[in-house]
Amino acid sequence: MQSIDLHGIVAYPITPFHDSDGSVDDKMLVRLIDRLIDSGVHAIAPLGSTGESAYLSESEWRHVVETSVGRVAGRVPVIVGISELTTAAAARRAVYAEQAGADAIMVLPTSYWKLGEEEVFQHYARIAAATGLPIMAYNNPATSGIDMSPELMIRMTREIDNVCMIKESSGDIQRMHRIHELSGGTVPFFNGSNPLALEAFAAGASGWCTAAACLIPEQTLSLYAAAQAGDMAAARATFYRQLPLLQFILKGGLPKTVKAGLRLSGLEVGAPRHPVLPLDAAGCAALAAILSAVTGEGASLAA
Amino acid sequence: MQSIDLHGIVAYPITPFHDSDGSVDDKMLVRLIDRLIDSGVHAIAPLGSTGESAYLSESEWRHVVETSVGRVAGRVPVIVGISELTTAAAARRAVYAEQAGADAIMVLPTSYWKLGEEEVFQHYARIAAATGLPIMAYNNPATSGIDMSPELMIRMTREIDNVCMIKESSGDIQRMHRIHELSGGTVPFFNGSNPLALEAFAAGASGWCTAAACLIPEQTLSLYAAAQAGDMAAARATFYRQLPLLQFILKGGLPKTVKAGLRLSGLEVGAPRHPVLPLDAAGCAALAAILSAVTGEGASLAA
Amino acid sequence: MQSIDLHGIVAYPITPFHDSDGSVDDKMLVRLIDRLIDSGVHAIAPLGSTGESAYLSESEWRHVVETSVGRVAGRVPVIVGISELTTAAAARRAVYAEQAGADAIMVLPTSYWKLGEEEVFQHYARIAAATGLPIMAYNNPATSGIDMSPELMIRMTREIDNVCMIKESSGDIQRMHRIHELSGGTVPFFNGSNPLALEAFAAGASGWCTAAACLIPEQTLSLYAAAQAGDMAAARATFYRQLPLLQFILKGGLPKTVKAGLRLSGLEVGAPRHPVLPLDAAGCAALAAILSAVTGEGASLAA
Amino acid sequence: MQSIDLHGIVAYPITPFHDSDGSVDDKMLVRLIDRLIDSGVHAIAPLGSTGESAYLSESEWRHVVETSVGRVAGRVPVIVGISELTTAAAARRAVYAEQAGADAIMVLPTSYWKLGEEEVFQHYARIAAATGLPIMAYNNPATSGIDMSPELMIRMTREIDNVCMIKESSGDIQRMHRIHELSGGTVPFFNGSNPLALEAFAAGASGWCTAAACLIPEQTLSLYAAAQAGDMAAARATFYRQLPLLQFILKGGLPKTVKAGLRLSGLEVGAPRHPVLPLDAAGCAALAAILSAVTGEGASLAA
Repeated sequence: MQSIDLHGIVAYPITPFHDSDGSVDDKMLVRLIDRLIDSGVHAIAPLGSTGESAYLSESEWRHVVETSVGRVAGRVPVIVGISELTTAAAARRAVYAEQAGADAIMVLPTSYWKLGEEEVFQHYARIAAATGLPIMAYNNPATSGIDMSPELMIRMTREIDNVCMIKESSGDIQRMHRIHELSGGTVPFFNGSNPLALEAFAAGASGWCTAAACLIPEQTLSLYAAAQAGDMAAARATFYRQLPLLQFILKGGLPKTVKAGLRLSGLEVGAPRHPVLPLDAAGCAALAAILSAVTGEGASLAA
Repeated sequence: MQSIDLHGIVAYPITPFHDSDGSVDDKMLVRLIDRLIDSGVHAIAPLGSTGESAYLSESEWRHVVETSVGRVAGRVPVIVGISELTTAAAARRAVYAEQAGADAIMVLPTSYWKLGEEEVFQHYARIAAATGLPIMAYNNPATSGIDMSPELMIRMTREIDNVCMIKESSGDIQRMHRIHELSGGTVPFFNGSNPLALEAFAAGASGWCTAAACLIPEQTLSLYAAAQAGDMAAARATFYRQLPLLQFILKGGLPKTVKAGLRLSGLEVGAPRHPVLPLDAAGCAALAAILSAVTGEGASLAA
Repeated sequence: MQSIDLHGIVAYPITPFHDSDGSVDDKMLVRLIDRLIDSGVHAIAPLGSTGESAYLSESEWRHVVETSVGRVAGRVPVIVGISELTTAAAARRAVYAEQAGADAIMVLPTSYWKLGEEEVFQHYARIAAATGLPIMAYNNPATSGIDMSPELMIRMTREIDNVCMIKESSGDIQRMHRIHELSGGTVPFFNGSNPLALEAFAAGASGWCTAAACLIPEQTLSLYAAAQAGDMAAARATFYRQLPLLQFILKGGLPKTVKAGLRLSGLEVGAPRHPVLPLDAAGCAALAAILSAVTGEGASLAA
Repeated sequence: MQSIDLHGIVAYPITPFHDSDGSVDDKMLVRLIDRLIDSGVHAIAPLGSTGESAYLSESEWRHVVETSVGRVAGRVPVIVGISELTTAAAARRAVYAEQAGADAIMVLPTSYWKLGEEEVFQHYARIAAATGLPIMAYNNPATSGIDMSPELMIRMTREIDNVCMIKESSGDIQRMHRIHELSGGTVPFFNGSNPLALEAFAAGASGWCTAAACLIPEQTLSLYAAAQAGDMAAARATFYRQLPLLQFILKGGLPKTVKAGLRLSGLEVGAPRHPVLPLDAAGCAALAAILSAVTGEGASLAA
């Protein structure tokens, strides 16, 4: 089984676009990556849901992979998100990520048609056969329409060589319990549901994959630190402080709200792509108030 | 408001692939289209869900549109399915469908991110601005992840010029009641849920969009004829006869089961694309038994 | 297997209470029963959900059974509703209903605890052993918390002598299809979901169990007549006319809205029991407007 | 606002029945209560769901209240469960509980009919007006069919004098977050979902209301102790050890599985009342294996 030491705060950068023509803004992308690494996050996950990868063309996607890996330059691990409708396209991107120097891939099965368990398994097996990279099986039924059971994911970690980590974003803590039970605690799992961050660490999660790190990196890191220290009271205190923001970005949609939050801090990252619309004025005002309360000061986010 | 006389059995062809290299099989595609039209269906809807359009490249998609419209050659209306993640890509395909000579488009909003009502509305409005074709708003939350309320769809028929028809595939008959109530019966609606075919006609549906016509065209047509005649007993009798097949293809997934059924009748249409797998042996045996019972004879489907 | 010729409009009377002390108003109860029978309904079902049987003491319940059966006096069949938490209490009531002269019982399993299939089966078997009356298995997960599959209910009609009819109130038309398929159309099923009345008849329902008959008896009867005649267009027309009322009473709760409707027509039937509150003023105004539109004249409901 | 110092492990005794005639077994009831208090639990909650209170007659219910309060005799607080269909019956029981000397009541709204927010509020207000006891608002939609939002429950703690605690059994950790947020952490909340015990403490729950204390009191107490100490790692370790039992009793139904577990330890507590059936042989074997693994030795449960 492939392996990689992944833990802690796994941060999702957004993909910034030029307002003029909607193309990827390279300069801002590298600035955002540096900002995250400087804040202390433990890994970078470009092209996750937050990165609007579903809305990028294949060439744009390749460009963002190359730019991100190049800029991180080994400072922290890079885990690249892949969620393609066809197995062939997903495998092609896995190959590309490996060639570009990524450390791992995070694969979300997604399909127009409801897939049976065997179809999902074969999808992963075929992608794994195409790459030597460690693979994180990623369950997120709300965005992908496919709900992988803990049983299926644990089976994949046993029967497919590269599949060695699980990310659970269903928001159901019982799934994490089940993953722990089925693997005797040996398969590392990551939480992708922001408002479950406290409890996922209580349940033993290795890390928290989050776009919140774009806006409040210190707070996400302090939650992880308290959890690592096993200090339940400190973890609870910092969690409840940042919870309003976590709820807001979940409910509003990550690219939309995180881009709005970055703009509030003075970073011109552009709008999300249609059909997603920018956060409206009322939403921006609410977000500003929440950010100010969470961080203790309005200006602290400016780069 | 744009208009088109669409009614009755709107048949979805599958997209046949060469087993050798997975490319689109043009010869078989035109044969399947001729077969449907010869059986008497009232319209052809290429590149719906059944046509695996989500799994085609943009150039393949264009090729299938062109081939289909050319082969139908005005014998019946052609309504082209469009379900793209970005608004820009959907609008581009709408323009292409119009240039190719399609009579209408059927637009399914689909998005990685949950869309708000305004985002869905703008998505349709932008596509409508790009084309003069009549647009069917298509609700299918199970495949698209977006659930459009009757209220939203009726609002679109009022405020967006080209949106003039609704297709409901949620399988909830109360949605059709609501569409009827909100529009005073003036907006034509189509049923896309196969096991609801009888009741949708009872509730006043203008037509039934179905892949079942690929396998049992006569039966789907006889249900429509009985409904048109207002004969509830005859409609019920033919519906219950074909229901086992309608349930089977819904549960098994349309491209997979319809392709298997066509192969059972001797048509080599190829396998669906990965991650979708071909129907397994047990499934094929079950399908053969159902088809035989529905049609009264095993051989009747051979071309 | 026990048998009874039950069909058409099976009307639920409400249970009227004196406003003074909340006790059952016998005079009004017999008046309501006469009114229903005079209007032409095909059967009377006292102590269904609409009759607030869950809120009556055992002695009140017995009194209402005795009064109802005595007043109907054989003019139409009487089917008594039973939904008790313990099997012992349900069996005791079945015995009482038989002694009082009821023609059948309608049994809704209900339980604080989720029941397994075998527990539900044994519940029915024990009740059936206590009485010689025909039993209608009644599925209504929204009120009872127990969802009986078509498979379980058909099994009960085969393995428990008295269970010979099914009432489906889940509102899912596919359940009715399944009942028809599993029994080859031999087990009569009744619809208990008001907004599904049209489609249930299209699917072959023997009757419609409804509290709407308290307010608009002629309309419910005309829907049944059109369905019996197999006239889909006439059935649809009368259905859509009464649909706003059917939706209103479902959404608002039957005892609350039906009692309010009867009061609007001048019948002082009292309020429902706490915790259910009477329909508020805005609700009464909305109901009056709907009734007026459905019946074509405001005054037509007065006794 | 009324107040009571309730915290920690709030244990639900089952209600034991004589196998001979199904009547309440007083001797065993007092033995079970003593056993729980001797083990160190922090409070006793007779006539909760686990106590089969829904299946007791009113006189049986009163008898169990009187016996329980008398036996506890002030050693720990007694909180009596009340879940009646009508407001009048619930208020009557509240009065009785107070007269019998209970320290608090735990009120679960339950209704045949879906209740609106105002109806639930009035239900509580009327019960509160009848008693001076502190009231715990208890949300358990799976058994009661009524889902009270955090907003409604917090409103009740503000506007109804006696309502001063919340029990959440929906199993949704986000509800607990919301209760904490809405009340600024001032309203104590208790967890009633066994497999959520670890995370509820992480989120700040004051206690855990559980029937598991009947079978594994030491383990439930050690989880609370670790949580009190803020030791996340120790809490996690003991939680995962007892989780298989917590899952088993939730899935199998509390009275059924807890009674089976007590019988396995040699206590003849009788069967649950019909329609609930005793745990079958396979279930008993599975339970024995789980208990043995959780407690480290098979015999440790014998009294």
